[in-house]
Formats: sequence, C-alpha cells, structure tokens
Amino acid sequence: MTAPLAIGIDIGGTQLRAGLVDASGAILRRAAVPTKASAGASVVIRQIAGLVDAVTIGVDRSWLLGAGISCPGPIDTVRGMALGIPTLAGWTNIPIAEMIGAALQLPVRLENDGIAAANGEWRFGAGRGIDNLVYVTVSTGIGGGVVLDGRLIHGHRGMAAHIGHMIVAYDGELCVCGNRGCWEAYASGSAFALAAQKRVAADTTGSARALLGPSPDAKAVFEAAREGNALALSLVADEADWLGVGIVSLAHLYSPQKIIIGGGLANGFELLAPGIAKRVAGGAMPAFRDVVVAPAMLGDNPGLVGAAALLFSGR
Amino acid sequence: MTAPLAIGIDIGGTQLRAGLVDASGAILRRAAVPTKASAGASVVIRQIAGLVDAVTIGVDRSWLLGAGISCPGPIDTVRGMALGIPTLAGWTNIPIAEMIGAALQLPVRLENDGIAAANGEWRFGAGRGIDNLVYVTVSTGIGGGVVLDGRLIHGHRGMAAHIGHMIVAYDGELCVCGNRGCWEAYASGSAFALAAQKRVAADTTGSARALLGPSPDAKAVFEAAREGNALALSLVADEADWLGVGIVSLAHLYSPQKIIIGGGLANGFELLAPGIAKRVAGGAMPAFRDVVVAPAMLGDNPGLVGAAALLFSGR
Repeated sequence: MTAPLAIGIDIGGTQLRAGLVDASGAILRRAAVPTKASAGASVVIRQIAGLVDAVTIGVDRSWLLGAGISCPGPIDTVRGMALGIPTLAGWTNIPIAEMIGAALQLPVRLENDGIAAANGEWRFGAGRGIDNLVYVTVSTGIGGGVVLDGRLIHGHRGMAAHIGHMIVAYDGELCVCGNRGCWEAYASGSAFALAAQKRVAADTTGSARALLGPSPDAKAVFEAAREGNALALSLVADEADWLGVGIVSLAHLYSPQKIIIGGGLANGFELLAPGIAKRVAGGAMPAFRDVVVAPAMLGDNPGLVGAAALLFSGR
Repeated sequence: MTAPLAIGIDIGGTQLRAGLVDASGAILRRAAVPTKASAGASVVIRQIAGLVDAVTIGVDRSWLLGAGISCPGPIDTVRGMALGIPTLAGWTNIPIAEMIGAALQLPVRLENDGIAAANGEWRFGAGRGIDNLVYVTVSTGIGGGVVLDGRLIHGHRGMAAHIGHMIVAYDGELCVCGNRGCWEAYASGSAFALAAQKRVAADTTGSARALLGPSPDAKAVFEAAREGNALALSLVADEADWLGVGIVSLAHLYSPQKIIIGGGLANGFELLAPGIAKRVAGGAMPAFRDVVVAPAMLGDNPGLVGAAALLFSGR
C-alpha cells in the first residue's frame, strides 16, 4: 500500500460499494452493502460512511486524498446537487457532495455515473492513452461518458453524455424516462431481455421456451447463442444492430477513435461485435468507419475506480 | 482598422467568400465569387488567393495573424487533409491547409465548417459568454459545432459534431450520406421543401399549388405561414417537431445551456420556436428542459468570422 490513496464510492440503486484505490487504479480493499434505496439520502450517507470506515481501517488519514463518488444521474455535479434520482427515493434537490463530505470529513468529488465509469476506463482500462473515446454502459439502461481532445467532458451542470436518451426511433417505444424512441428503450439489457421474452411468449410450439426458459434474461440468450441456437442468434443479431445504430450516431456526434462497451451486455461482446461492425460499415460516413469498438476492461468497477481517479488526476 | 487582423475564408459548394476580420469580429472588407466546384482543388485555391488579395489591398502584412478556413467536412483538421468532400470534386486526400498556406504565404488554420460557425457564434454572436452550447445550422443539410466546458470540441481528426447524421428514425428515409434515418433527412431545409412539394403534388384541388406555388421552397412556406395559411402552418409544425426531436437528443448528449439555430431555416425561427419548445417540454428529461433554444446572430457569416477568430483565440 503506497500513498497517495483515494476512496471510490459507487452509489447504485441496488448495491452500494466503496473501494480503497491507489494511483495505479488498483482496488486494495473493497466493501459493499445493499443500498437502502427507499430510506432517503441521510440513511444512505450513513451506509457510505460505514463502508468507508471498513475500507480505511488502519490507513493513515494523511494518505487519503479524498473520496470520489459515482452517482446515478442526472445530477448537477457543478453544484454537487442531486436533482431527482429515479432509483433513489427522496434524493431531490439534495446537496449530496456537501453532505457526504461532512459525513466523511474528506474532500469529495461528485460525478455522474457514466462519466465516472468513462474516466475509469480512460485512465486504467480499455481507453488508456486515447484522447477521444466514448464509453457506453449497456445494462438495465444505457449510460455513458465521453473523453474529447484529451479531457473528460462535462457540459452544463456536468450532465453531458446521457447517451441512452438520444432518440433513434421517432415516436417509438416508451422509455423509462417518459420519452419515446430512446436508444435505451431498444438496445439496453432490459430491452434485449424483453425481446427474448416476447419471442418465447409468441412461440406456440414451446421450443423457444424449452431452449431459453420461460423468462429469459440476457445471460440465457448469450448462452444459447454460444451453443448455436438459431433463435438466440437472431435475437443477438437484432440487439447488435440496435447497438450499431446508436454507435454510428455516437461516431458522427463525438468523433471518437474508440467506443468502449461496458455493462452487463459486454459479457456477450464477442457475439455482438460482428453485427455492430456490419452496421458501422454500412451506416457511418467513410471518414468515421475506422472507429474501434471494443469491450471494457474494468468489469464491474469502472465507476468505482473512475470516481477515485478524479482525486488523482483532477476533473 | 486596427491590428491585429485575420482573414476568414468560407469555402462553400456554391460560393467562396473571404473577409478581413478584426479582433472584435467585425468584417471590415468582404469579397465573394462562385466556387469552381468541379475544377479541382488547385483552381479553387487560386480563387481563394485572388479573394484574399482583394480584401487585403493596402493592408500592412504585419497586421495579419493569418487565415482561418471554414471547409465542408468531414475534413481531418489535425493533419490539414480533405478526406473527400461531396460538394467539391477531386478534394480527396488533399493537404489543403498546406496548399492554401503556400498560396497565401500566411499561417493557416483549417476547421470543419460546422465547428468554425459554432466558434463564430460563440465568440461574437448568440453564444457569447456561454461555456456549453450547440450550434446547429439548418439549410441544405444539417451541420453543427459544440462548445463544452468553455472549449470548442474537435474529437479525433477534428471531425466532431456531424450532428446531421445522428439517426432519428431507424432505417428511415435515405440521407445524402448514404445512410438511412439521419436527422438531416427529416429536418434539413431540403427535407422541409420536399415535404411541401409532396403536399402540393398530393393536393388534387390545386389550392395548395395556388398558395405555395408549384415547387415551394422553405421561404415560400414561411411566407404563407406568416399569412396564416393552414397548410403552411401544418408543414411548419411538422418541421419544428423534427427539429425538436434532434434538439432533445442534443440536450441529452452534450448538456448545453443553449442551442443556437442558424442557417437558412433560422429565417423562420419565430414560427418554429413553439413547436420546438413543445417537443423539448415533452421529450427532454426534467433536468434538461431549461435548455435555451435561440436563433443565431451572425446571419450568413458565422463560418467566415469563426474561422478568422481561430487566429485570435487559438483552437
């Protein structure tokens, strides 16, 4: 263990995690508890303080630069305010940066979770050394973060890169955000699982149900696809195409050299890659077609590591 | 006339323009010729040299910081290369920055036209003093440029913000870029005129033709809408809605404080604004709904002024 160290905190709707991170991005210690998501901000902040105590036992306080916090958005990271977080009850107009700082007695850096994760992959993962990249997390929803011209971009209130809510299908499927046609409503892990469940329900022969189970999730579809199951392969091809449509738009919008795919669906990256590549080759303008699409490298931890890294490298 | 001065050059597919610009953004002299678009790069560069001679007669060369060039994209502004410009024949893999610099014997800054125009509106127009903005030019096509965290964003090869080619309608209308469903294919001035022409063609009573003419353009529709013509108002409402769909996505993608609308369709901004506002109110996530949508202020000149401004303010 070598100074300097930083705490990374990843606030999720289901799990709350903290890690002790060194300047190389290594997680030296880690602790997690289920988030008391319906109990309000004060209770969750007490949970955070408990986790931080656990990962810093015996650590010289002078070694700690502070704590970086990855939080579901949209949050105003300029003022340190939660504006209203769908997955966390009562986090509306709460000065969370100040409250957590007071609880921990440490300097605090607050970041929207997609941007924190992008920072993790940029500093220590699949984006190391790259000046222009988009990180896309595809799990329950779709989030992300963007590095351009060698800097993490933030935008007004620090809310840039809510990429799951670009519209890819005019007045299309209803999204959890309330709008219609968002990329998230078509290409997220939830949308992928829902498509599989619809196919099972529509298959009167019962063979799809036999192969994928009564209520398949993304993992079940990937497993069946790896075994060569045609229905699963067709579901994967559709998912890859929807991902590809958004990736083409991201290439034109940000001009990244690399687009990094993280989140749960990155577990099936090798299955999705050919369909994504096909859509990029057919849909991106020639000057953008050499964008590299690659899987994330930090697994479940880009947000935690990326939040801690804010203390080492600045915003 | 006060030093320092810079030349702004706006290379368009139909018109080639040069201006002598001072540090306040004022255009002191201006010259324009029709672009010899099919004659190849060398001929156009001779045209540029002629225009620059015309606007710098009697000007002390030591007052000139250099020339900023706004060029249709996608161009690699990092290497100064035209990769292939649809509206200019033979501009494929041409080192235009170097060639123009040699012809003018001046330092040259090359910029994709959307980014140059964004720079103009940011430095001297509707975006003055704002750290996070998106400039959208809506004319034949849709282009743009983005300022985030107080900096003009460029991305890999300087090609960021090709915003007209984000996909808003999965596998929808064919775009001039070859892809389907691009924002440009639905919301550009060309798409707006085409929608009007289709309505005229479909109207068997002949009344639409009488009101809008046999082959209406955007201007004709705006004029008829201002006179209260119901068909024109309905066409304007559709156009505003398509613009609004893209604007909602841009808000989520970049988190701008302000979105500035320029190009030919900005002439009907007051007609389009209510429909855009309605879509933003209904489609953007609550934290993004206060984005200001406003008309550009520099008329036909944001690219010219913004290119010149690159010499004053750096990239």
